[in-house]
Amino acid sequence: MAKRVYLFNEGSKDDRQLLGGKGANLCEMTNLGLPVPFGFIVTTPTCNDFFDQGKNLPDGLMDECRNALKIVEDKMGAQFGNPDNPLLFSVRSGAPISMPGMMNTILNLGLNDEIAEGMAKKTNNPRFAYDSYRRFIQMFADVVLEVDNDKFEEALDSYKESKGYKFDVDMQADDWKALVKTYKTLVDFPTDPFVQLELAIKAVFESWFTPRAGVYREMNRIPDTLGTAVNIQSMVFGNFGDDSGSGVCFTRNPSNGDNIFYGEFLTNAAGEDVVAGTRTPEPIENMKTTMPQMYEELYAIQDKLEKHYRDMQDMEFTIQESRLYILQTRSGKRTGRAAVKTAVDMVAEGLIDEKEALMRVEPGHIDAFLHPMIDPNATRDVIAKGLPASPGGATGHIVYSADEAVEVAETGKSVILVRRETTPEDIHGMKVAAGILTELGGMTSHAAVVARGMGVCAITGCDEIKLDYAAGTMKAGGKTYKRGDVITLDGSTGEVMEGDIPKVEASGSEDFQTLLGWADKYRRLKIRANAETPEDAGKARELGAEGIGLCRTEHMFFDSSRIDVIRSMILSETKEERQTHLDKLFEFQKEDMKALFKTMEGFEVTIRLLDPPLHEFLPHNDDEISALSGRIGMSADKIKEQVTSLHEFNPMLGFRGCRLAVVYPEITRMQAQAIITAAIELQEEGLNVIPEIMIPLVVTVREIRMIAKNIDESIKEVLQKKGVSITYRIGTMIETPRASLTAHRIAPEVEFMSFGTNDLTQMTFGFSRDDIGKFLPDYLGHKILDVDPFVSVDPYGVGRLVKMTIEDSSQKKAGLKFGICGEHGGDPHSIQFFHDAGLNYVSCSPFRVPVARVAAAQANLRSTN
Amino acid sequence: MAKRVYLFNEGSKDDRQLLGGKGANLCEMTNLGLPVPFGFIVTTPTCNDFFDQGKNLPDGLMDECRNALKIVEDKMGAQFGNPDNPLLFSVRSGAPISMPGMMNTILNLGLNDEIAEGMAKKTNNPRFAYDSYRRFIQMFADVVLEVDNDKFEEALDSYKESKGYKFDVDMQADDWKALVKTYKTLVDFPTDPFVQLELAIKAVFESWFTPRAGVYREMNRIPDTLGTAVNIQSMVFGNFGDDSGSGVCFTRNPSNGDNIFYGEFLTNAAGEDVVAGTRTPEPIENMKTTMPQMYEELYAIQDKLEKHYRDMQDMEFTIQESRLYILQTRSGKRTGRAAVKTAVDMVAEGLIDEKEALMRVEPGHIDAFLHPMIDPNATRDVIAKGLPASPGGATGHIVYSADEAVEVAETGKSVILVRRETTPEDIHGMKVAAGILTELGGMTSHAAVVARGMGVCAITGCDEIKLDYAAGTMKAGGKTYKRGDVITLDGSTGEVMEGDIPKVEASGSEDFQTLLGWADKYRRLKIRANAETPEDAGKARELGAEGIGLCRTEHMFFDSSRIDVIRSMILSETKEERQTHLDKLFEFQKEDMKALFKTMEGFEVTIRLLDPPLHEFLPHNDDEISALSGRIGMSADKIKEQVTSLHEFNPMLGFRGCRLAVVYPEITRMQAQAIITAAIELQEEGLNVIPEIMIPLVVTVREIRMIAKNIDESIKEVLQKKGVSITYRIGTMIETPRASLTAHRIAPEVEFMSFGTNDLTQMTFGFSRDDIGKFLPDYLGHKILDVDPFVSVDPYGVGRLVKMTIEDSSQKKAGLKFGICGEHGGDPHSIQFFHDAGLNYVSCSPFRVPVARVAAAQANLRSTN
Repeated sequence: MAKRVYLFNEGSKDDRQLLGGKGANLCEMTNLGLPVPFGFIVTTPTCNDFFDQGKNLPDGLMDECRNALKIVEDKMGAQFGNPDNPLLFSVRSGAPISMPGMMNTILNLGLNDEIAEGMAKKTNNPRFAYDSYRRFIQMFADVVLEVDNDKFEEALDSYKESKGYKFDVDMQADDWKALVKTYKTLVDFPTDPFVQLELAIKAVFESWFTPRAGVYREMNRIPDTLGTAVNIQSMVFGNFGDDSGSGVCFTRNPSNGDNIFYGEFLTNAAGEDVVAGTRTPEPIENMKTTMPQMYEELYAIQDKLEKHYRDMQDMEFTIQESRLYILQTRSGKRTGRAAVKTAVDMVAEGLIDEKEALMRVEPGHIDAFLHPMIDPNATRDVIAKGLPASPGGATGHIVYSADEAVEVAETGKSVILVRRETTPEDIHGMKVAAGILTELGGMTSHAAVVARGMGVCAITGCDEIKLDYAAGTMKAGGKTYKRGDVITLDGSTGEVMEGDIPKVEASGSEDFQTLLGWADKYRRLKIRANAETPEDAGKARELGAEGIGLCRTEHMFFDSSRIDVIRSMILSETKEERQTHLDKLFEFQKEDMKALFKTMEGFEVTIRLLDPPLHEFLPHNDDEISALSGRIGMSADKIKEQVTSLHEFNPMLGFRGCRLAVVYPEITRMQAQAIITAAIELQEEGLNVIPEIMIPLVVTVREIRMIAKNIDESIKEVLQKKGVSITYRIGTMIETPRASLTAHRIAPEVEFMSFGTNDLTQMTFGFSRDDIGKFLPDYLGHKILDVDPFVSVDPYGVGRLVKMTIEDSSQKKAGLKFGICGEHGGDPHSIQFFHDAGLNYVSCSPFRVPVARVAAAQANLRSTN
Repeated sequence: MAKRVYLFNEGSKDDRQLLGGKGANLCEMTNLGLPVPFGFIVTTPTCNDFFDQGKNLPDGLMDECRNALKIVEDKMGAQFGNPDNPLLFSVRSGAPISMPGMMNTILNLGLNDEIAEGMAKKTNNPRFAYDSYRRFIQMFADVVLEVDNDKFEEALDSYKESKGYKFDVDMQADDWKALVKTYKTLVDFPTDPFVQLELAIKAVFESWFTPRAGVYREMNRIPDTLGTAVNIQSMVFGNFGDDSGSGVCFTRNPSNGDNIFYGEFLTNAAGEDVVAGTRTPEPIENMKTTMPQMYEELYAIQDKLEKHYRDMQDMEFTIQESRLYILQTRSGKRTGRAAVKTAVDMVAEGLIDEKEALMRVEPGHIDAFLHPMIDPNATRDVIAKGLPASPGGATGHIVYSADEAVEVAETGKSVILVRRETTPEDIHGMKVAAGILTELGGMTSHAAVVARGMGVCAITGCDEIKLDYAAGTMKAGGKTYKRGDVITLDGSTGEVMEGDIPKVEASGSEDFQTLLGWADKYRRLKIRANAETPEDAGKARELGAEGIGLCRTEHMFFDSSRIDVIRSMILSETKEERQTHLDKLFEFQKEDMKALFKTMEGFEVTIRLLDPPLHEFLPHNDDEISALSGRIGMSADKIKEQVTSLHEFNPMLGFRGCRLAVVYPEITRMQAQAIITAAIELQEEGLNVIPEIMIPLVVTVREIRMIAKNIDESIKEVLQKKGVSITYRIGTMIETPRASLTAHRIAPEVEFMSFGTNDLTQMTFGFSRDDIGKFLPDYLGHKILDVDPFVSVDPYGVGRLVKMTIEDSSQKKAGLKFGICGEHGGDPHSIQFFHDAGLNYVSCSPFRVPVARVAAAQANLRSTN
């Protein structure tokens, strides 16, 4: 029969599978010779046996426990169940993979009336003994016997009331003793410590199948058969007197990464008191004077642990009667700056190699180097919460329109643009805003995409605010905010705060550059950026982009100098009239493309043909229509008629993408000729320009055949006129399920395929990204979805289409290039998926490029390790 | 070397592959001993050789032709190229599969100056000879030499002008002769008849690769390697004098199917004159007196041909100098009534069996028995054309709103409801209308779906009409139509006509029932109907439906007595308030379900949970909102606020389907309890009720788990309270690509899957069915799509998802039932696809049930033959 019980000196950190994560770590520390309160572990296979045998502990298990207990008693010099010298235990679950949502801890197991009395005598501290006893009863009742915890709280409250006490600290030894009596009328708990232990072990096993734990496992695809271990550890107490205490410490500063021992400490206090915040802990350095020997021991241990685990450690310790115990060690949580500094420092110190350093940094940590962040130590007065659409922190005066934003910004004030949603017509206001807040829209709404592109902090889908444009007010958190009121946004968490909250300014660092250099060394995926302007492209290139994966040509037309020309083109009543306006647009487009090509010299630039429904370019309210009417000399009624006739019930599924190129081949012709003329003019200056023309929203290969023919012929005309030649490529977006399902037919006709996973997600789920806010919270709350599928790519539906596309296409055409240019291109989870699926590149907002570089390296390291 | 040239007596109808369809038929008739003008055929493989050899005719081919020519000359008693006794030929292409879009015919091949002169002498009819000659030059120049035809037309026009002629009939022999001179200055054509023949053969082969022919082959997946044959047939002339003539005849009456010889005839006329309509032909019976012998011969031949081909024949004949020639025979086009009568009669006559009779009827033919149809012989004044959304013909007075429709209908007048589009709020008007015409919307728009369900004629997406609600007018065909003006709709063709056009009333017939009986005998697919009301369900059952495949529960709430209750439910501000309204809805829903179950006793009834976005139930204009405010006692501002907050950018991808059931489980609970209570109450009366509850718009199995649990628990509560048990099933719709892509995970949790191919098509293509009108005409025009994918299911994209779903699911759960309840359920092409894909049933509008029965039988016969 397999061994079911392991002492802390019988395992190591490599035994996670058998002993669970927590147990394995306790063993590891014990082996290192650290002063860990001794104990033992019941193995994870025992959990399976327990369920196989109809929730009965296997024969002989408790005997094994008794044997282990004896050894623990010897080590600790105290006995379980002995009133004269009692040993108490904590009992905790511990699965091979950390699983929040499982059983709570039971502390002080092994107490009954007699032993509590004995402990009171031995410690000469009856208040401590009876407080511990009543806590044990309450925990055991709650966790093991499933008795409603409220009854105990009510009993405590009514006792204090009867005595006129206000706080728990008013309770004296006799008070706790009296309360224990009341508690015992509320629950019938076993007084035999061994029975307590047996029931506690069973309760831990049973917690493996609570609904919460089940949902968590399903979400994280953890098999039910893994099972949990049970950790039984001797109790030590920091609240024995002034030679006792508890503390938490870090091997380095978790805020900035400085390699300085850092922590907090409370004399005569239990571990929970340090966390609870009822007393203010003192800095760990104070121990140097108050407990110099303890400090020296602790310092040596932290040093040893960091070297051993080769990572910054977050430790909990307790000092009981001048003896130091280490209760837990784990990798310390850290800020972005600290994560990068620690990782790079540790490589220099020879603790870890570059690959490991890369794996240590969470891609989100990178944001701290790109955007100002809300000071992690600042107090936050949160008035509403929305979606963290674009990271960073910003403070400013509220404005409710783009024009207002420009007006106020010109006075030198910082502004926060608050809108129900944004449209391309708001761009001028978004450009000058310090932050953007919208009531509607998801993580890939217009506001979110544009803000990320600009690197401006934004919160979208914040339906906790109620906007009233007419009144010029916003309601949030029960208050009304007017124009000019100051608010702060945290775009990394989605929190909206009142007033000006302190921020930590962004700044690159040498460490940051070092880390990104390593990322480039270890990644396989190429990283491109989504950008149209030379400014954005320049930023992207500076941040490491290796090309443009998506240039949205329509963005170039929203500029105030061009918008009326494209409007006139749309409103044209004859082909000839349309051509006049197209000729003007040709000049704009050509100059824009030249600027972009120049910035990205030597890199591929993928240009998407006109994509949005035409009505997006037209004004919709009467004032704007009549203004336009005056400017372009067309009657307002005619404009209105066109606006009405272009109206769509579901614009996302409407007349857009390459459908425009089919109906208006002259627009495509203009675009192709502008792109290629720009490229030729630069080539003549000796620049290396690589244009890739991309056809959007394809559903059938026949669209590509027709449009590619038009592109080729239009370009040929230019080349023949100029008597030159140039290399260009034609590719397609895969953003409708049908394009993916018929990719084997499309493949022979294109040179690259770029997944537009925003639209692909919209159509695969039937989720409009602008409307998802109405039900997404319920979907996440009920765990129907683990994550917003517009944030991280859905691996089962959308992902299956991506994999099918690559597989089917590659069989028809070797060497086809695959990329992705949806918002998922900047999401680390998605980048892992795209790496595994075999894509060649991802393309994302300029400010996501460094994140993508790190995520791509991690994906590659994960899959090659 | 293979034989390349076949005389008409060397092949048969089984030689389509080698000789093309036309050639094989000419051989067949020749073999039958019918008087076919003799000739020969160049085979289809020769076409491939021609292209393989760089567009050169294979060596020896023209020698083979000369040999064949000699035999033809002998048979015809005239010689090719002999001025004294000239033989002329027609040259035509003929592929194995009929291919419109290929080369035009060349008539009178073999003429030059000398031969024309000889023909003038021999026939003593120089006008005829020179007219034939100039026609030949023009045809040859156009088809073989690719000279612009306009030049010849211009020359003719200016000649007539110079002479002061108005019509071609004014041209005399000398005129034609003079014109020929002019023609010869326009084109340099070969005068050697053999060279003419060689060039004509080459031209036929070259026409195989014209772009039009290429597109047609691609559309119909005809391989390029098939090739075309060339038919070279002796010319005969019906315009030789009063002992000559031409005619067209049918072996039975193609209008009503009566087994009576039927046709038209013109004395002294060429075949094209009968078709051209410049002279009015006389009935074929007149030949009995004018040409009794010819009539007798013709009658015998038609009888022989029908028995031989075992189908009604459509024949062309020419009489030259009292000799009868048969130029062509083919299956005759016929009306629906004639098709059914002919098929059933021919079984009785022993000509064909039941299976063949079924294959002879086009499913669309069935409509004639269900709807009044526009008289096929009536003159049509078409003022606009839209989509043929619901078949049949209707005449009525124009109204522009549902209320107006009711008002006018109450006066006893027939009305045509004309709307931009319809919504559920228009139902009362649609119910009383004789026909429905909408400016917007596709074949599956609200108007189309509801009209088909009601069996009311409808035309949708008719953007050739311009509505002006304010003025109460409609512009079409350059005219303006007011309220009360009379128009006629042909819902089978999409034509809108001015005035009252005669109709043929619908009526079932014994033949019709006989045919449907055979259909039921030979089909495998079950046919269900989409219906909610007992009236619709009753109609469906009467027409042969074997269950309800889709009961849209929301339709039950649009009734004026319920609409305010569901509105109040939606507008509820607390759960308690909502429950009060749900309790009222429960009663309505229960009674409705009872009525439906009763009608469909013994059959399965599939009930879909509430599906549409909630804003569809709410009023949108100020008047309606304030009226509602008064009725339900809620402030108009509050209602408006809710309407605004429920507004969606893309409602098709919004908060609808089972997303409602996730956010408002209490609605599902009410529906489940109403359904099951209705079933129990009928079961207690001894009725056999089989409810199937269907969850719409699923994207993940987790939705089903949550909702099915709610349904099961809600039902259990009812069953326990009543102490009874009942069988019910829970299933899902597959209408998002993601449901299909993850069907293997969904399968274990459901008992049936029903494809919602409307939504599946919308999402797979990214086509909003309401907006597709803006680009669909271009897509069909450019042959990017062969057919509107909302009319016939797309076999490559949507179809691949359907097949994947069935394959993946069946591996996880045996015996799962698959159906389809989108509009494709009533489309014959789609039914073939669904049969082949292995579905168990299709569900369609009641009036499509007979069509579906026939289509299902045909699908089965096709796949088992």
